[in-house]
Amino acid sequence: MDVTRRLARYVVTSRYADIPEAARREVLRSFLNWLGCTIGGSRHETVDRALAALAEFSGPAQASVIGRTERLDVLHAALINGISSHVFDFDDTHLKTIIHPSGPVASAILALAERQPVNGKEFLHAFILGVEVECRIGNAVYPAHYDIGWHITGTAGVFGAAAASGKLIGLNEQQMTWALGIAATQAAGLREMFGTMCKPFHPGRAAQNGLTAALLAAKNFTSSERAIEAPRGFAQVLSSARNFAEITERLGETFEITLNTYKPFACGIVIHPVIDGCIQLRNEHHLKPEQIDHVSVNVHPLVLELTGKKTPQAGLEGKFSVYHSAAVAIIHGEAFERQFSDACVRDPAVIALRDNVTATVDNKVHEDEAHITITLKGGGKLAKHVEHALGSLKRPMSDADLEAKFRHLADGVLPHPQIDKLISMCWSLADIEDTGAVARAAVQDAR
Amino acid sequence: MDVTRRLARYVVTSRYADIPEAARREVLRSFLNWLGCTIGGSRHETVDRALAALAEFSGPAQASVIGRTERLDVLHAALINGISSHVFDFDDTHLKTIIHPSGPVASAILALAERQPVNGKEFLHAFILGVEVECRIGNAVYPAHYDIGWHITGTAGVFGAAAASGKLIGLNEQQMTWALGIAATQAAGLREMFGTMCKPFHPGRAAQNGLTAALLAAKNFTSSERAIEAPRGFAQVLSSARNFAEITERLGETFEITLNTYKPFACGIVIHPVIDGCIQLRNEHHLKPEQIDHVSVNVHPLVLELTGKKTPQAGLEGKFSVYHSAAVAIIHGEAFERQFSDACVRDPAVIALRDNVTATVDNKVHEDEAHITITLKGGGKLAKHVEHALGSLKRPMSDADLEAKFRHLADGVLPHPQIDKLISMCWSLADIEDTGAVARAAVQDAR
Repeated sequence: MDVTRRLARYVVTSRYADIPEAARREVLRSFLNWLGCTIGGSRHETVDRALAALAEFSGPAQASVIGRTERLDVLHAALINGISSHVFDFDDTHLKTIIHPSGPVASAILALAERQPVNGKEFLHAFILGVEVECRIGNAVYPAHYDIGWHITGTAGVFGAAAASGKLIGLNEQQMTWALGIAATQAAGLREMFGTMCKPFHPGRAAQNGLTAALLAAKNFTSSERAIEAPRGFAQVLSSARNFAEITERLGETFEITLNTYKPFACGIVIHPVIDGCIQLRNEHHLKPEQIDHVSVNVHPLVLELTGKKTPQAGLEGKFSVYHSAAVAIIHGEAFERQFSDACVRDPAVIALRDNVTATVDNKVHEDEAHITITLKGGGKLAKHVEHALGSLKRPMSDADLEAKFRHLADGVLPHPQIDKLISMCWSLADIEDTGAVARAAVQDAR
Repeated sequence: MDVTRRLARYVVTSRYADIPEAARREVLRSFLNWLGCTIGGSRHETVDRALAALAEFSGPAQASVIGRTERLDVLHAALINGISSHVFDFDDTHLKTIIHPSGPVASAILALAERQPVNGKEFLHAFILGVEVECRIGNAVYPAHYDIGWHITGTAGVFGAAAASGKLIGLNEQQMTWALGIAATQAAGLREMFGTMCKPFHPGRAAQNGLTAALLAAKNFTSSERAIEAPRGFAQVLSSARNFAEITERLGETFEITLNTYKPFACGIVIHPVIDGCIQLRNEHHLKPEQIDHVSVNVHPLVLELTGKKTPQAGLEGKFSVYHSAAVAIIHGEAFERQFSDACVRDPAVIALRDNVTATVDNKVHEDEAHITITLKGGGKLAKHVEHALGSLKRPMSDADLEAKFRHLADGVLPHPQIDKLISMCWSLADIEDTGAVARAAVQDAR
């Protein structure tokens, strides 16, 4: 079966007119959320260090580094913006695969939109198709691929960046097939890197490498034409199981972007039910930490696999600790970036409560579900069953929630009038003539 | 076991004074062979297309593109020179792993030597260490890793480029550990790409990505510190078997570069015994193709797995055809790049003989061995048993052979006096003050 070519043909022949309203609507929410995360992450030391190492090698100042003053060539801009978008672990999630879909795709095409004219509809169309490609490839290999140890946002994301970039560049079917192949042979990113600066490096590199794949293919740089499905192709080499029907069936009829979700909390999605429940209990009972004897949570097995750090030492490690996350949710009533700072992770009050949190794996608990029981010092018990965490498909964030999150992230990075203007641009993106202008409006000291 | 850190510590603490003479000697031969291959490959359309796609994004003109006139930033120069070095499949081979060791390493550090002063001994020392790192990592996972479908020159090569670059940049132990981690999470390259432009892209990207890893680590960009050995690290995720003792034992006592070999024929090493035997029979018996009824070869199983193309259509495909290779060896008495041109693959005389070549797999035949039987039209038979192919460890190419190969590759690309000067520079590399000068002496219209 010619999986790679069929996917390429679909991307090349798809028309914006064929995209249903639900997908056109969700891509705006995805872009708003991506842009807010990217602005918010842009001043992180991970981004500082990447720029300190690599800005020297940048080509012409073609493209904006979101949230900052530097301008870089489009490949480096794609890398840096991709890093910024994921550095807080606050970006979007395709729940079926745990892919963070926008990082690789939007980082690539927003940079590209400063190199060539791209209007709003073209941009959103390419965005939708990029997400479609990466998530369908993810669906085909998840969970086996992820279980082996691959960071799927990097490995599948590179295909999304290639497809979306290739659509905007105007690749023909043959070139798009090559672009997917050049992407396949760069698919990389190990889960071993979680908790280090290499985690956000993965979507950044996926954006940069996918864009590179499309640019090479445009000059007829060849690759295998069966890069996904061949016996030594992506799905065989990087996964122990695969279902190609996930890639080819109902192509053009269903849209994975309509399954996108956004995080209300600045950490891995798997801890969200616990944080949600802890905040609810805190608010409902006006809880103070000194009233609490201990906190018990029953969670899906992945929670302890991914976020089992008992004694995080740095802010970044706090994101991989269900114990720290529960403690800050109860003490602060929120879980934004400041709750995952070095200072917060080392706060004695947080540590004291964290040490009294126990987590138990329960195979009957779903990924967006949690049971929380707080035992008070007097012996009383408070319980909360979170059936679907805030931000899940069943309980999505509202447009207003997303705007509030954007403001929270951009606050302190860009002035408030600029933030207002950007939010307005995001909602009206389909009618914007030059989407590169959005990137230029999202930098420090924008004119 | 702290495999990654031990390897990093070794690279950081190693001194040139500790390197034995055999390694110091072999690295000169490796560099000469790499430079010749890179000059020879530099005008290939694969390189043209990569430059057409990517030169626009290059930063400052820091580094030479070998064999050409362009100057690019060091990262792009590493990529392009890495592509050139492998485009003819004529570079070196570490036979234990089928890694082509010099491509990723030399392409990275020769570019780097134009950004910072690097003298000959520093350059050769870093080269030796880069080869040590990539080949030891390769030894630890070969053959399982390769059998899965990974192009090991890309996946192991990125570590070699990172280690060698990091040595020249002066990384400390912690930074070198991170550099190996940043390399690990970029390890990519599928064997599915063999026969396409992506094959030489792999060592190029390994050079560029390994150099990037070292540059990032120098700015304290963090990664896992157990990237090779962790449960979700390189050796577990990208291989079904592994032996870490291959990485850590006798470190600093044995040197993988002393096991390096060079190809007398411009194609995959696995066909060399067949070509060698066919040329010997041709020369010993003054054979003409019209005398031949058919040719039978008995070969190692990998020969048909890798080079089983019966009817190659393009020159590049000829390199993956034991049938074509045997035919040209008999007709032309050599197997240089011109024997793998489109014209030669489509030559009716070559096709006629190729169609009368049969290959049989024999599990008792070693990788550098072949049995050739030529049946003449009159019924007579000529037989040759090649125990060890020319270019193997048992029958290495002489220094004079390597010089002749260099001249063959550079002929038509650079003028003869420049070729003479480069050969002389290669042999005296240990005494050169500024190795960047070698790169600048290897371009078109060099001053």
